[in-house]
Amino acid sequence: MRNYIYKFIDTAVDGSAKDKVLLGGKGANLSEMSRLGFPIPPGFTITTEACNHFFNNNQDFPNSLETEISKTISLLEESLNKNFGSIENPLLFSVRSGAQESMPGMMDSILNLGLNDETVIGLAKMTKNKRFALDSYRRFIQMYGEVVLGIEHSRFEAVISNKKRIENKTLDMELEVGDLEWIINGFKSTVERFSGKEFPQDSNEQLRKAISAVFNSWMNPRAITYRKINNIPDTWGTGVTVQSMVFGNLNKSSGTGVAFTRNPSDGSKKLFGEYLLNAQGEDVVAGTRTPYPLIKNDQSNGSSLEEKMPKILNEIRTVCAKLEKHYKDMQDIEFTIENGQLFLLQTRQGKRSAKASLKIAVDLVNEKIINKQEALLRVKASDIENLLHPTIKPGTDRELFGKGLNASPGAATGVISFSPEATEKLSKKGMDVILVREETSPEDIQGIFSSRGIITTRGGMTSHAAVVARGMGRPCIAGAEQLLINYDEKIISNKEMTLQEGETVTIDGTTGEIFLGELETVDAEPTEDYQTVMKWADQYRRLRVRANSETIEDTKKALSFGAEGIGLCRTEHMFFEGERIIFMREMIMAETKQGRKKALKKLLKYQKKDFKQLFKLLQGKPVTVRFLDPPMHEFLPSGDMELKDVAEASGITFNYAKEKSLRLQESNPMLGHRGVRLAISYPEIYIMQARAALEALVEVKSEDNISTDLEIMIPLIATGKELSLIKKDIQKTCNKIQEKHKVTIEYKFGTMIELPSAALRAEEISKYADFFSFGTNDLTQTTLGLSRDDSAKFLDDYLDKNIFQVDPFVSIDIKAVGKLIELATHAGLAGNKDIKIGICGEHGGDPESIIFFEKIGLDYVSCSPYRIPIAKLSAAQACINGK
Amino acid sequence: MRNYIYKFIDTAVDGSAKDKVLLGGKGANLSEMSRLGFPIPPGFTITTEACNHFFNNNQDFPNSLETEISKTISLLEESLNKNFGSIENPLLFSVRSGAQESMPGMMDSILNLGLNDETVIGLAKMTKNKRFALDSYRRFIQMYGEVVLGIEHSRFEAVISNKKRIENKTLDMELEVGDLEWIINGFKSTVERFSGKEFPQDSNEQLRKAISAVFNSWMNPRAITYRKINNIPDTWGTGVTVQSMVFGNLNKSSGTGVAFTRNPSDGSKKLFGEYLLNAQGEDVVAGTRTPYPLIKNDQSNGSSLEEKMPKILNEIRTVCAKLEKHYKDMQDIEFTIENGQLFLLQTRQGKRSAKASLKIAVDLVNEKIINKQEALLRVKASDIENLLHPTIKPGTDRELFGKGLNASPGAATGVISFSPEATEKLSKKGMDVILVREETSPEDIQGIFSSRGIITTRGGMTSHAAVVARGMGRPCIAGAEQLLINYDEKIISNKEMTLQEGETVTIDGTTGEIFLGELETVDAEPTEDYQTVMKWADQYRRLRVRANSETIEDTKKALSFGAEGIGLCRTEHMFFEGERIIFMREMIMAETKQGRKKALKKLLKYQKKDFKQLFKLLQGKPVTVRFLDPPMHEFLPSGDMELKDVAEASGITFNYAKEKSLRLQESNPMLGHRGVRLAISYPEIYIMQARAALEALVEVKSEDNISTDLEIMIPLIATGKELSLIKKDIQKTCNKIQEKHKVTIEYKFGTMIELPSAALRAEEISKYADFFSFGTNDLTQTTLGLSRDDSAKFLDDYLDKNIFQVDPFVSIDIKAVGKLIELATHAGLAGNKDIKIGICGEHGGDPESIIFFEKIGLDYVSCSPYRIPIAKLSAAQACINGK
Repeated sequence: MRNYIYKFIDTAVDGSAKDKVLLGGKGANLSEMSRLGFPIPPGFTITTEACNHFFNNNQDFPNSLETEISKTISLLEESLNKNFGSIENPLLFSVRSGAQESMPGMMDSILNLGLNDETVIGLAKMTKNKRFALDSYRRFIQMYGEVVLGIEHSRFEAVISNKKRIENKTLDMELEVGDLEWIINGFKSTVERFSGKEFPQDSNEQLRKAISAVFNSWMNPRAITYRKINNIPDTWGTGVTVQSMVFGNLNKSSGTGVAFTRNPSDGSKKLFGEYLLNAQGEDVVAGTRTPYPLIKNDQSNGSSLEEKMPKILNEIRTVCAKLEKHYKDMQDIEFTIENGQLFLLQTRQGKRSAKASLKIAVDLVNEKIINKQEALLRVKASDIENLLHPTIKPGTDRELFGKGLNASPGAATGVISFSPEATEKLSKKGMDVILVREETSPEDIQGIFSSRGIITTRGGMTSHAAVVARGMGRPCIAGAEQLLINYDEKIISNKEMTLQEGETVTIDGTTGEIFLGELETVDAEPTEDYQTVMKWADQYRRLRVRANSETIEDTKKALSFGAEGIGLCRTEHMFFEGERIIFMREMIMAETKQGRKKALKKLLKYQKKDFKQLFKLLQGKPVTVRFLDPPMHEFLPSGDMELKDVAEASGITFNYAKEKSLRLQESNPMLGHRGVRLAISYPEIYIMQARAALEALVEVKSEDNISTDLEIMIPLIATGKELSLIKKDIQKTCNKIQEKHKVTIEYKFGTMIELPSAALRAEEISKYADFFSFGTNDLTQTTLGLSRDDSAKFLDDYLDKNIFQVDPFVSIDIKAVGKLIELATHAGLAGNKDIKIGICGEHGGDPESIIFFEKIGLDYVSCSPYRIPIAKLSAAQACINGK
Repeated sequence: MRNYIYKFIDTAVDGSAKDKVLLGGKGANLSEMSRLGFPIPPGFTITTEACNHFFNNNQDFPNSLETEISKTISLLEESLNKNFGSIENPLLFSVRSGAQESMPGMMDSILNLGLNDETVIGLAKMTKNKRFALDSYRRFIQMYGEVVLGIEHSRFEAVISNKKRIENKTLDMELEVGDLEWIINGFKSTVERFSGKEFPQDSNEQLRKAISAVFNSWMNPRAITYRKINNIPDTWGTGVTVQSMVFGNLNKSSGTGVAFTRNPSDGSKKLFGEYLLNAQGEDVVAGTRTPYPLIKNDQSNGSSLEEKMPKILNEIRTVCAKLEKHYKDMQDIEFTIENGQLFLLQTRQGKRSAKASLKIAVDLVNEKIINKQEALLRVKASDIENLLHPTIKPGTDRELFGKGLNASPGAATGVISFSPEATEKLSKKGMDVILVREETSPEDIQGIFSSRGIITTRGGMTSHAAVVARGMGRPCIAGAEQLLINYDEKIISNKEMTLQEGETVTIDGTTGEIFLGELETVDAEPTEDYQTVMKWADQYRRLRVRANSETIEDTKKALSFGAEGIGLCRTEHMFFEGERIIFMREMIMAETKQGRKKALKKLLKYQKKDFKQLFKLLQGKPVTVRFLDPPMHEFLPSGDMELKDVAEASGITFNYAKEKSLRLQESNPMLGHRGVRLAISYPEIYIMQARAALEALVEVKSEDNISTDLEIMIPLIATGKELSLIKKDIQKTCNKIQEKHKVTIEYKFGTMIELPSAALRAEEISKYADFFSFGTNDLTQTTLGLSRDDSAKFLDDYLDKNIFQVDPFVSIDIKAVGKLIELATHAGLAGNKDIKIGICGEHGGDPESIIFFEKIGLDYVSCSPYRIPIAKLSAAQACINGK
């Protein structure tokens, strides 16, 4: 028979810290601390398996559970010499939740359970403190009423306020025995009125219902939301710890507080914490009384615990040191002092700021408590992310205007603008601008670049705006679906309010929030600890890390972050600037191959110049140049006015330009005439690009003696035949250049694998490829049949219903997309044992995905410059965990 | 060493009929006939391997080829006692192409090779006929000039015309020796002038270049086009047969002709053919002289061969009988009579009309020459297709206006209309209308139904218009990209001409051609032979065949064609008619779940009524009901005017309707919010549909005692979780109905597999499914990343460059899409051994695809009603071939 109860009664302990999955963090650590002889009030934990049983069986307990509970309570009664439900010396319990990972404040707790009209008298006698007993009882009725019976908080508060008003008192502490008796009666009436039943006097019923209520709190909306944000699966369930009460509110020699073994803000190795005397835990949380510091400081004026109870503080110091040594990490401890005696109620890894996280990891290595590998595992990707981007100053008052996806992190303030052109204009005047669009397209690139941040009302985590913004390190909020833009009137509205062009907002790309007005932001400050951690990451990772980058600025940024090359240079981005777009449009409008060639010749010189700059920056590091990918219509303007200009510049009639533009429209451009398909129809395009890249390579060699490690990459390949045809064209182009310049050119030739067909034909394709680079964005779109630009509006439903645990455009969908990647990797190596295989989708910078890429043995990942440190850290973590 | 030459010299024969792949049909059959002792002029065939070598090696012959040729020519010289290049008794050759499958008239031939200024004298002496020798020489120079040297036909014709004008003669036969000498000189000058070189006098050079030219003719544009149309791979290559000449133009006892062993038009068992006396083969082809019938008839007036040369005709009769018996099929024979002696130059399976094809197959079984299985293999899918659709009367004069994809077969005449509304209106007035649209959408369904045929200028073989048209049996030409529609002016133009609304066209959906004006069409007439063949097909097939159908009319049609159930009932098509679309739009516009439910309740009664009608028609045969699939915006009107009506009907403001409509727009609707995703967001939709289907089932049982075999099918599943959620909703709905009506309902529950993710997760999904149905249209789109609506404009490039051998929306792409189907089939059976697996994409009616589906062991295919006979035939053929 399965055991649903793990007791911790002095040194008779069933569990340990290893049982986190079964007992939750709280239960496991209480067991562990009991084992180690720390002062822990005895109790037991009901397992997460019981919780899962509860939800899978119409909220019924497992058969054996109640019997197990009674047996364990008997043991507790024996050990403590108190009796549950006894009038003489009542045993009281706290009932608290605790999941595998700490979810602070998300679930419910009940204290003082076991009190009723009779036991309260026993408690008063036993503690010789009637006021305390009554105070504990009224707290219990309220907590039980709220948590178990679902009665609103305000109903109870109204009773207390009422009494205080009658008695002309303001603080809870001023309430006397008589007042409390009045309040208890009031609370019991409230319970009866709103739940339809009397407040239960049977302690066993109280306990059973409290346990059910704590189980149920696993599924309350805020817990669900918290899990969604933190990628915690619903299937974990919560443990429930039933623990004998110790009372911080017994008298003035009692109290309660929290202690951090190090400072959670800056990571310094100093005990940190707060406490209150004559109080229960909830008083600290509720904020009705301001807690005092544990440690004496300039402002403490004798209020610190160090000054009030130096002996207890010393005990806490000792406990902290021992716990930190035992757990090898900074701990967050809850304690209660009952009548001058210290009890520990919880210990857990302490939450910490990004800066503290890095400092503590590095310090613990220096203190020889952990090694470098362990330290690397301690640092979270989000710590690195927060460290590299500005953030809104903590504590700043803010008014929310809207919310979207946290598509690119960081905070920014600026005036809103609804067009890329206006954004550019305003930015040239020295203004900070937030570009607001329904969605963006490659032709908006200049506007995005000129902006401080981007808001879109459509599109997901890998929409154009999101990808480009991350690449440029601009904060971006994508798919803020509840906001509506009216371009004609230049306004954006939520349901209640409308903002006009020129009004100021502050966006937080790390949370996806849009606030009104200007909020103060704090700049990024990569610390020395950050440098140390990154050095360690380099030491322990196997995966190479490259950048997705094509501009000089991004490439410099990427190199400064330690990019080991460029894994994706999107050449189309080079065709939007200045004159280039004119020639690009001329090429598109051309009626004949000759016409296209003429326009391409003009583009050639720009493209070559761009490549040369890039190659020089790379200094021989590998650079993967992806040839033209987007469909032609992305290069055409949307308005008739601009199309007229295009017609004029290309020497054709407006009608012809309009007709051509209409012909280029597609129902599903994602699956349309783009990528290699353009080159199958118009081979001259890739031939021009090959010429530009190869001539640049030759010239950079002769001018600066840099040997470029060039990789030419073909997008949207579905079959081996396509790749073989393009390979021939490019080799011919190369031969011509070799002959002309009398040189030998070395370059690699490869392809993106971004269609299921390519993955399934990988062996055939690998015969023509020196490398594969999985384009996981498009591969996710096609494998799941899910448009990244359209999925935002229903993806929430999918996350809510647990169909996806996480947005598949953020972390790779392992069962289908991952399966194709794995199949293609094996097939690619079977066809060509020397093939190099990497990733250049957005998933290349996602920690979860990197674990998978490490596991299947890819050679490299490529991601946007700002994600490089994260990718390196994750790669190291994946390696360490893989061993 | 590889042997590139297969000789046939009397009874010394290297090859046989089995060597078609290596020798081509002509070469293999000449070998076979030589073996059997038929009168065949000796010669040899150069293999298709040599042809492939030629194209893979810069048009060089294999090393050994020329030596092999010389050796074989020596053997021929010995056998015939003539010498190649000899002045005394010159050996002359014909050089002709011949691929695995006959491609009549597509490639080039050269006759009389070996003639030069000297051998022509020898020929004259040997035959004692100078005019004949000169006539042969001038023919040779012209053929060689055209085929080998690429000089235009008209250059030579000009010389002849010139001479005729000078001499005041009109017919070639009037040309005398002197004239011919003049012409020969003229031809030689022409050759020199246009090729820059003298006409070659060296027979070996002539032969070498002629062989090269015939190889090259494999790659001439018309051959490439022919192969593309007939799905013949370029890699086959052509054989080249070099055969000693016999002369039909030697004298009046000579001649040439063709004979069919049965009538190729109606299939009757009667010798049929034509001939000319004193002529070479080209004279028959060129149409300068009208050939005479072989067999005497009412109009022959003594001109028939039966009357002119009864002995030869008897010989031909004997030969025909023998050949037909040997080859077990109707033969098409080329013969030459030289000086009263019969020679055979070719035999092949005779091309025949659809009607003849069926008659011959059935007759040959009755004559016990072949068995039923063989007969089934003889009938082509296209025969069945042609037999079931009207066609333009053969021989009708026609003027082409444009051409698109042959998306749905059959011919139709009507006035053009540019809107579904106008089409409906005109059709109600009794006019035949051809609906012309850029593309169609589900809201056009009524217009399509009212039309006689459809033309679209966008979209492919599986675009909406194509699919719907095939389903309804309307001819359709899709993706006529070179035509441009202007809706405002109601005109459609090709580059030269514009048609206005109301003008008449005739379309041939079997060829994809659009003709001006009204052309006479011939109705379909399924013969008794057709019924016999279909009966045999039912006997020998394993795959079940169902119909894609939802209307009463289509379902009746499908059942009349022998459908064994409905494999795909697209419920969305039921929401467009009359009031339904109003309520559908009301549902879409609703702001709340309550609002949606209210509108759905109104739809429920229609849906249930539709289902009941369908179930009654099916009489217990299985019916697969697919729940709502398309995205919501497909149900909304495109114009603001109609949207105003929608707003009014739904009781909302126009602005809200407009906003909602804009929000529903998607960048890639194919990958958007559709299929099961709608039900994940709005479960009430599928719940309503389940209720309608299940209540219909109950009512049909109680009213008519019909037990419906209902299969509920969920579209666009990507994961098992989605299916499990929907399954719960539907089971709950079912439980309610069971309780209410106190009945037990049996139904099956399953899913489409139309996303790579679903195929890759098939095992997990199969746990919740009684059946899988592969939606091969969408699976092709997502696997290849290829939008069926957008691919028409570049798919030709893909076919031209042999990236695809055939449009993957027509025949399944076996390497990727097929691989996924196979994977998913195995995984599905692994997860649920009782699962039934079928196909409901357009590929379900495609013969090539059916071979694949049979091979991997699927249970059924479902296709549009008009393709059911084809599917049945193909299923039988696949079964027979598989054994």
